[in-house]
Amino acid sequence: MAEHRQGHPVTDYPTALGASSRDRITLLGKDLAQDVMGEVGFGELAFWLATQRRPTPGQTRVFEAVLAALADHGFTPTAIVTRLTYLSAPDSVQGALAAGLLGGGSRFLGVTEDCGRFLHDVLAGRQLPTDDDGWDAIAFEVLTARRAAGEFVPGLGHHVHKDGDPRTPRLFAIAAEEGLVGPHLSLFAAIGRVHPGVLGRTLPLNGAGVCGAALADLGLPLELLRGFALLARTAGLIGQLAEELRDPVGNEIFLSVDLNNRSVPPRPYEQGGPHG
Amino acid sequence: MAEHRQGHPVTDYPTALGASSRDRITLLGKDLAQDVMGEVGFGELAFWLATQRRPTPGQTRVFEAVLAALADHGFTPTAIVTRLTYLSAPDSVQGALAAGLLGGGSRFLGVTEDCGRFLHDVLAGRQLPTDDDGWDAIAFEVLTARRAAGEFVPGLGHHVHKDGDPRTPRLFAIAAEEGLVGPHLSLFAAIGRVHPGVLGRTLPLNGAGVCGAALADLGLPLELLRGFALLARTAGLIGQLAEELRDPVGNEIFLSVDLNNRSVPPRPYEQGGPHG
Amino acid sequence: MAEHRQGHPVTDYPTALGASSRDRITLLGKDLAQDVMGEVGFGELAFWLATQRRPTPGQTRVFEAVLAALADHGFTPTAIVTRLTYLSAPDSVQGALAAGLLGGGSRFLGVTEDCGRFLHDVLAGRQLPTDDDGWDAIAFEVLTARRAAGEFVPGLGHHVHKDGDPRTPRLFAIAAEEGLVGPHLSLFAAIGRVHPGVLGRTLPLNGAGVCGAALADLGLPLELLRGFALLARTAGLIGQLAEELRDPVGNEIFLSVDLNNRSVPPRPYEQGGPHG
Amino acid sequence: MAEHRQGHPVTDYPTALGASSRDRITLLGKDLAQDVMGEVGFGELAFWLATQRRPTPGQTRVFEAVLAALADHGFTPTAIVTRLTYLSAPDSVQGALAAGLLGGGSRFLGVTEDCGRFLHDVLAGRQLPTDDDGWDAIAFEVLTARRAAGEFVPGLGHHVHKDGDPRTPRLFAIAAEEGLVGPHLSLFAAIGRVHPGVLGRTLPLNGAGVCGAALADLGLPLELLRGFALLARTAGLIGQLAEELRDPVGNEIFLSVDLNNRSVPPRPYEQGGPHG
Repeated sequence: MAEHRQGHPVTDYPTALGASSRDRITLLGKDLAQDVMGEVGFGELAFWLATQRRPTPGQTRVFEAVLAALADHGFTPTAIVTRLTYLSAPDSVQGALAAGLLGGGSRFLGVTEDCGRFLHDVLAGRQLPTDDDGWDAIAFEVLTARRAAGEFVPGLGHHVHKDGDPRTPRLFAIAAEEGLVGPHLSLFAAIGRVHPGVLGRTLPLNGAGVCGAALADLGLPLELLRGFALLARTAGLIGQLAEELRDPVGNEIFLSVDLNNRSVPPRPYEQGGPHG
Repeated sequence: MAEHRQGHPVTDYPTALGASSRDRITLLGKDLAQDVMGEVGFGELAFWLATQRRPTPGQTRVFEAVLAALADHGFTPTAIVTRLTYLSAPDSVQGALAAGLLGGGSRFLGVTEDCGRFLHDVLAGRQLPTDDDGWDAIAFEVLTARRAAGEFVPGLGHHVHKDGDPRTPRLFAIAAEEGLVGPHLSLFAAIGRVHPGVLGRTLPLNGAGVCGAALADLGLPLELLRGFALLARTAGLIGQLAEELRDPVGNEIFLSVDLNNRSVPPRPYEQGGPHG
Repeated sequence: MAEHRQGHPVTDYPTALGASSRDRITLLGKDLAQDVMGEVGFGELAFWLATQRRPTPGQTRVFEAVLAALADHGFTPTAIVTRLTYLSAPDSVQGALAAGLLGGGSRFLGVTEDCGRFLHDVLAGRQLPTDDDGWDAIAFEVLTARRAAGEFVPGLGHHVHKDGDPRTPRLFAIAAEEGLVGPHLSLFAAIGRVHPGVLGRTLPLNGAGVCGAALADLGLPLELLRGFALLARTAGLIGQLAEELRDPVGNEIFLSVDLNNRSVPPRPYEQGGPHG
Repeated sequence: MAEHRQGHPVTDYPTALGASSRDRITLLGKDLAQDVMGEVGFGELAFWLATQRRPTPGQTRVFEAVLAALADHGFTPTAIVTRLTYLSAPDSVQGALAAGLLGGGSRFLGVTEDCGRFLHDVLAGRQLPTDDDGWDAIAFEVLTARRAAGEFVPGLGHHVHKDGDPRTPRLFAIAAEEGLVGPHLSLFAAIGRVHPGVLGRTLPLNGAGVCGAALADLGLPLELLRGFALLARTAGLIGQLAEELRDPVGNEIFLSVDLNNRSVPPRPYEQGGPHG
């Protein structure tokens, strides 16, 4: 560190990500041109960038299955937002994509992160079971506690796929094929088995939730589970833009709202509270 | 179409992307769980979403090589922006990623799109050559014209890799291995051969530029070439966030600016022009 | 400047905007607490920040009239986007506002900037007229040239207010009351008088366009005319969010699109061009 | 409501904000051109849009004092982000502003919202005191409880203005001049008086915190307190962009990071937890 004359020390900034010199570019300590380009798939690279360790082929397959599960769900708010923003500012593809991603918050893309974190929190500090009975016991304890507290269980239930989310058994199967069913998936499966007896009704295990469990079992940073959902969605939003370019519906969506507006008188806002 | 009572016709919105019913999810006409998850890599899926046609393995390899080339370039403005935004609003991963992507405009991520479009515009309406001499003739004509007009050539030159961008020969080689050197790459190679004689100096073919040529040869929508650079960069920015979580530098970057600020008096702005 | 050990000189960063020490905060060289808070209105402050000169009361009035004209236009794409993003990510007000602003590009909020720049470019290097006949002569010349080139005239025409945009005469009147009709407004008025004779039909002077002319006459930076439209719109989008909080329509908008989707088969994309 | 043929009812969308017909534009039930433009200041309009009630001149003055207090704080992360995004994508002013606003989250712009909500929550359901002793009693109770719980008190303390934030007494004075010291400001003042005895040290009342108290006393929606900070900051960020256009420092900031990077080996990430 050097001392700057205004008194603030000047530091350097360490990174293991991209770096370049006049004749070489490295990424994650590898030669980008020779060792990464043409050798590393995009899902594999995204995993590697997030963890600084290269995934096995099995890890990559599970990871890419999750990304496929989350890439596009049709006319979600994020997709509509990207199409409308492109309609309004066609000069800025980056703005249209960024606007869509901004909808990736707690409600629509949040299940993946919420479920992964929830399972991780339950597991923290516990001795891990070695058989299904052990997992079921943890699930029973947790479900009972949440029911008593009136809290819902992240990843349980789906507003459309009421009889079962088709992504869920498929992701369990892929993880099993690759030998990657870890504690988060195990606990989530147990929740699926045990919850009818505790809650008195049968709910599906949400596909976005199982994605969170799988990502957590892959050892990915929990703080960024939402980030992987956003990565998947970026590919989906590019698909939405590509379709909008050829078969535009954005203006029709806009008009369906604008032309059906109904002007009403202002209604003065009153803050709630003791002095309202 | 139904008629709405306020007179605006109500339409439906066609899409070939994601759709779901109570027990099935489809994507691009395929069963998402059975035919996409576990079967389709993420780069392959992104290509498919953007073009609605499934790429060949060779096309996927070239496409993923491009994504690798563009994923992360270290402490670019986009990376710094994502880290600073996360520092300032750690509750919103989507905001940090979106902020970083918003720097993906004309200057830092624009070469890919500019180069792809430039090559495409040159080729429009031309009979395509069948040998290098033919490509060199087009390159000579175009370079001469741009030189006469005082215009620079997109994709020619690099501020760091002055003796050659290592990504460029590698991407040409990968495309050749896959039999995917099309007219855009051919013209770009010819520009590399011919320009010293026209411009009087030798410049490297920019790696981001050759990516644009390769994407155009893959038949991807030209309007979205920047979008693919942004997809690649999303993976890179997640890597930046993951590193920031463990080895934070954002606050140090902020302080290095804030603590070195120098307060100067206001300088009233005068608009230029006849009445300035 | 100090020298850093890695060879990059360390600089300081001059600014006339906010600065603070342990016991004092300054803004634009003024004491924030004593001289700005309670003394300077928000429109006045925004003008001051953008130009580093304090506007006169008349300049502030014209500026605020422009901001009022642009603040909210009902269910525009930007408003719909903000509501949908808030629906999807209610934890991030900043994300909902940012997403809405990203629609402030060339099409929906661009007329203000385009018109101001257009008028400024026409005026560049000209001797300014002293009477209406002189302005009409310039307008005639410009309109004739654009008609010959098949180019439209920024700020001329409105898709709803076909008989006249009510904002236009009002803003001219306010500027006249304040003695602030400068060359941009004068030229725009002349375009209003002259164009029927040149174009063969009568079009309204667009209210967003006259805002651009007024902002240019106020001496504001032309590169940022869009920025003032965005500032106005930020207030409007907060209004949209406030209304959404009490009378939500975002979910209904989402459902009106999602439930009316029509699944169609993929249609493989073919790039146009010589090799398509 | 009409019935759509796919079964989804078509609704209309009520709004009291902007609406227009062929010859008239209304905003909040007023004629925009005649009753708003030239008549309503920008701060006043922003208040009106957010609450659908027109503020008194005193309310407007307090509101605009808050906006002035929050508009610009120099080289904050948000300002740096806006400058770097503009450097990287100068074609998109909206992107540069949106990127800056995305930093307006829990940490840097969150104090205003956090403090306003905290005070409001404390007051909920209480009988409001009529004298300082009564306020002090509430403050004592709350401070004691938070100290016991090891929780910090929103709005108490400032990392720079350790002897007092100059904005705080000024905003109290303005509110007093306008007769607008309500329960939130009263409680915040009591916290200032009482906390040394409870916490054992004297901390300043944060200027951003007092802004939150003042906004809450103005009856503005608590969910949007952060939104008003963002509105203020939009004006500040336009100022930052205007200065960057004339005296650019963005590239220097970028280089100060990029050229001081230090390449380090990858460090494989290990997720914490029982199976780590």
